[in-house]
Amino acid sequence: MHLGECPALLMSFGAEGPAKIPLSMLIVFVSAKLMAEIFERLNQPGIVGEILAGVLIGPSVLGWLAPNELLTALSDLGAMFLLFRVGLEVKSSELLKVGGTATIVACCGVVVPFVMGWGILILWGAPSNEAIFVGASMVATSVGITAQVLAAKGLLHAVSSKIILAAAVIDDVLGLLVLAVVSSLTHGTLNFLQLGLTAFLAVAFTLIVAKWGTHTMKRVTPHVEQKLRVGEAQFAMAMSLLFALSLLAVYTGVAAIVGAFLAGLALAESTGQRVGDLAHGVTELLVPFFLAGIGLHVDLTAFSSGSTALLAVIILVAAVISKFIGCGLGALSLGRTEALRIGVGMIPRGEVGMVVAQIGLGFGIIQHNIYGVVVFMSVATTIVAPPLIKLAYKKLLESGQAETPEEVFRLG
Amino acid sequence: MHLGECPALLMSFGAEGPAKIPLSMLIVFVSAKLMAEIFERLNQPGIVGEILAGVLIGPSVLGWLAPNELLTALSDLGAMFLLFRVGLEVKSSELLKVGGTATIVACCGVVVPFVMGWGILILWGAPSNEAIFVGASMVATSVGITAQVLAAKGLLHAVSSKIILAAAVIDDVLGLLVLAVVSSLTHGTLNFLQLGLTAFLAVAFTLIVAKWGTHTMKRVTPHVEQKLRVGEAQFAMAMSLLFALSLLAVYTGVAAIVGAFLAGLALAESTGQRVGDLAHGVTELLVPFFLAGIGLHVDLTAFSSGSTALLAVIILVAAVISKFIGCGLGALSLGRTEALRIGVGMIPRGEVGMVVAQIGLGFGIIQHNIYGVVVFMSVATTIVAPPLIKLAYKKLLESGQAETPEEVFRLG
Repeated sequence: MHLGECPALLMSFGAEGPAKIPLSMLIVFVSAKLMAEIFERLNQPGIVGEILAGVLIGPSVLGWLAPNELLTALSDLGAMFLLFRVGLEVKSSELLKVGGTATIVACCGVVVPFVMGWGILILWGAPSNEAIFVGASMVATSVGITAQVLAAKGLLHAVSSKIILAAAVIDDVLGLLVLAVVSSLTHGTLNFLQLGLTAFLAVAFTLIVAKWGTHTMKRVTPHVEQKLRVGEAQFAMAMSLLFALSLLAVYTGVAAIVGAFLAGLALAESTGQRVGDLAHGVTELLVPFFLAGIGLHVDLTAFSSGSTALLAVIILVAAVISKFIGCGLGALSLGRTEALRIGVGMIPRGEVGMVVAQIGLGFGIIQHNIYGVVVFMSVATTIVAPPLIKLAYKKLLESGQAETPEEVFRLG
Repeated sequence: MHLGECPALLMSFGAEGPAKIPLSMLIVFVSAKLMAEIFERLNQPGIVGEILAGVLIGPSVLGWLAPNELLTALSDLGAMFLLFRVGLEVKSSELLKVGGTATIVACCGVVVPFVMGWGILILWGAPSNEAIFVGASMVATSVGITAQVLAAKGLLHAVSSKIILAAAVIDDVLGLLVLAVVSSLTHGTLNFLQLGLTAFLAVAFTLIVAKWGTHTMKRVTPHVEQKLRVGEAQFAMAMSLLFALSLLAVYTGVAAIVGAFLAGLALAESTGQRVGDLAHGVTELLVPFFLAGIGLHVDLTAFSSGSTALLAVIILVAAVISKFIGCGLGALSLGRTEALRIGVGMIPRGEVGMVVAQIGLGFGIIQHNIYGVVVFMSVATTIVAPPLIKLAYKKLLESGQAETPEEVFRLG
């Protein structure tokens, strides 16, 4: 995804050649951490600062960097390690226990945003296919943002957190199906056999790993430590599983980060603290690239026309409200507080919405300015959500029941 | 550096698209660790297995992967983190103490290989300019390989280890100057002013950071921990310094890894164990990409002619012997055992020789088959050296005076 060329200024600093890697790392990492620091001092979530750092250094504002292969790779790896690290903190049995509620949450959270997005575009006068694609791009939650907020605040042990994680995984499978249906529909054909196969593969992969992964790794891990002679054998095994399941996830159609999350889940009850600690180092390094990478995609030039800007605001409000209502209603059986938390926790769309819009753009179904609207909605929901999540969990945070981040990601 | 296209087999597995990152990570990481395990079981250094894994999966043998932007970036980052991690274990005052000996070692280790490489090519009947470039490509030690062996075996505290590290840094500055001279010479002009400026910048940067870096960071680090609100503030500061000094190193003309090493040195006496632990996680993940990345560059098809293969063997032998003799002689004042250790420790050429040869290739001065010879020499020296280093340090390893890797890279 190249939104623009690197400006001449940066080229002269060595954007190609041996300076490229340290320069990119320095700009992204330092700007993300600086903005996080500023936001923490303003009593705002640091994560929002890191995303906005991406907007700031990106093509829209300073133009220091544009998304390129290196930054995209680091961003993707950052998301994978983030979800892996979160998976390590969660027991799969507890996720499976809340599976029923999570499925309802996920389904409601797919239907309501789709209908709202589609409806708004139709009222706006957009062609039917474009409306369908925009609806589809509003469907899938990006679990990375919420997971990072919950992990950083020590809230992963709450029931609502587990429902959010499980619902986000199911959501990803549903999003895959919606995209498949939508892509077929707009091409006029709907192959039910292939659709059924896609659904089966994705569901089977996720369920099998969630259900038997932990058990399998409990039997495998002790042997790894005893039998292997390479240093840090458990970490080597964990990384191999992480990459293998991420790859399998992609092959079965779900996102790589779902595979990474499942790898963490599978290892949660068998590997020692040391694996978590080493993975935490990688996560700390790469998460700023994931967060700033989201912001880097914003292209404010798409809003040169006032009507597009208005549409962007409407779509953003609809994206927030629709997920909040859909997921909140789905979780209402747990009481209003929990429903509220789950509702806000599912708001961020992040990279998932962008991918759908990009496919629509590639098909020539989505106009360039509407693509900009979807990207804006995707990024803005990740910025709006963290303060809302903090607010929704305020009582729990103030009660002292939250673990400190040091307790969650402590060194052994 | 693209040695070849990804074969069709791999493309069909998704070498582009969302599978690319997990697939590349999985292939490189797992093959490196598997080969390391096999080599450890054969009582050989695991590091050699990891380099050979790169040869195996590379264009020469299985053809699963070729060097590409992602792998090169991960490999470069791996080398940077490796040297950073090693720098964290070393006191700059101790390095400066051995500076005199290290300078003699580095100088002898530059002159002898250059003369031998140049002489062999002249006897071989190569044009004078080509001979000069091959000589230059044999000059610079790749400290990464030796550092990894010494760190993994717990030998970083030995005097000879410190001389090797210091000499390798000086060596890098000398290599830069040799390359500058050689590039100018072959173009017929030698700008002494520019050369002097290059030398001054590189030496000044290295000396200033080595001499005052530790002191500065001792004053800065406590404030960082107290004043900053972002999580893992010390780690964030360490990473910022790592990328900043790597970038400055590139701007002043030395390698990024020298800057990374200097960053580690500067932080060695001020940051807590936690920074080392988190950085260790990143190192454990990325070092296999650095090692396999070296092997990935081997292109055995360059040796289709018997005479080129013979030259490759002669150059390899010369590369090993010349560094061993040059550096060994330079360190003879420390006694034969230490001289032997330093002699073998300086043998690996790694990526540095390849870069010089590539520049020669770009100028049209080095023929393609001679480029293959230099790459072969660069990789083969990294494979030959680890067993020799193990042998040279045998007495120390058996005496139990070596720290275990767990002691060196322990978690607090």
